[in-house]
Amino acid sequence: MQLFYDAALNESTENYRLSREESKHLIKVLRKKTGDFVQVTNGNGLLATAVIAVADENKASLQITAKEQLPQRKSSFELYLAPTKMTDRLEWMLEKATELGFEKYQPILCARSERKELKTERLEKTVISAMKQSGQAHLPKVEEIQKIQQAIANCSAEQKYICYCGEASKVDLFTSLENGKSAAVFIGPEGDFTPEEVAFALDHGFQVASLGTNRLRTETAGLVAVMTFNLKQLP
Amino acid sequence: MQLFYDAALNESTENYRLSREESKHLIKVLRKKTGDFVQVTNGNGLLATAVIAVADENKASLQITAKEQLPQRKSSFELYLAPTKMTDRLEWMLEKATELGFEKYQPILCARSERKELKTERLEKTVISAMKQSGQAHLPKVEEIQKIQQAIANCSAEQKYICYCGEASKVDLFTSLENGKSAAVFIGPEGDFTPEEVAFALDHGFQVASLGTNRLRTETAGLVAVMTFNLKQLP
Repeated sequence: MQLFYDAALNESTENYRLSREESKHLIKVLRKKTGDFVQVTNGNGLLATAVIAVADENKASLQITAKEQLPQRKSSFELYLAPTKMTDRLEWMLEKATELGFEKYQPILCARSERKELKTERLEKTVISAMKQSGQAHLPKVEEIQKIQQAIANCSAEQKYICYCGEASKVDLFTSLENGKSAAVFIGPEGDFTPEEVAFALDHGFQVASLGTNRLRTETAGLVAVMTFNLKQLP
Repeated sequence: MQLFYDAALNESTENYRLSREESKHLIKVLRKKTGDFVQVTNGNGLLATAVIAVADENKASLQITAKEQLPQRKSSFELYLAPTKMTDRLEWMLEKATELGFEKYQPILCARSERKELKTERLEKTVISAMKQSGQAHLPKVEEIQKIQQAIANCSAEQKYICYCGEASKVDLFTSLENGKSAAVFIGPEGDFTPEEVAFALDHGFQVASLGTNRLRTETAGLVAVMTFNLKQLP
């Protein structure tokens, strides 16, 4: 069923007016009629079922008929990843990670980062679109870029990992992750973390993790981390 | 180390002449000099180490100093997937699947396929590039498109799965896969397999599999299948 997103949707919302763009898509492109059902979410677990009351190509409106609050996942996953030089690679990764399900993307600025700034609006749109497409009601947070030291110091996940290609005593991420505990995984830029960054993470309760034997691109590593966490949550 | 690909490389090759394009990349872009080391693979497990003998921007040549034959994986993974409408999504998936490691991509033509033809040359290039980038010596095979019934009938993997979003008795792919056995996973087009296609697969020893609760795009499902198989191969 077609799913719309509006952060302002709440427990007491009874009607919902679609934007011009949404109206056009629903009525003109998808050819939905008065009486057809759609869904709206606030991205925070609230999922409303609604009937099309006015099927207008420019200003359609919906009447909400039912609402349910979907629970959050038992354990959350936070991805800390240095933005790739090419942002389309980062967008792909976020689209896929959202389809699979994760809670937060924190861009990090590292000593060897080639991309030092990041516009998050476009990434926000990618994540919203992937949430809608995959029929979910929880929107992953996309944070503003932060220096790695700050991100390490503020990280409060129960399990904290830094992925590193250099020499270090490492655990295998899949083997090490425990079901039912939140986790954060740090993925470095194309030139990897520096030994000092890894040492700083170790001082803050992190483990150095490996994602396998192959040399993975940054965005592939990010997606592997999300998938690995999710597979570990299976009952 | 820079890795080159040449299907013609064999046990007796002693010298290797780079193409004009490869020469330019190695000598002009990467600024490698006479005496620097690189690697060459035939994509079939043979990995040669070579020293740059002639550092010419147009026709560089290498002298091979050592060769080793890397073993194949204990169990192979074959992905049968209906090409996506947008080929960039398929290319992206093949790049990532190659980085992670898999053995064969068989495009399938299904009743609801929107894309009925597929040029494999570009996909071949994507796969070669990803193999080199990720430092591997085994090149996944990219086959020509085949009707799903033919692909099902010819599939000889030890574990055979068809992923389906419709109603069916399903196994969870991760739980069901056994370590040490080859596997094939079929992923349908945007509109999914038809019940008749699923029934045909069941008649040929397939199991219907689920990749989780979220609605995944075709190319995301393909990558999840590869990743799931690989995680199951961990000791």
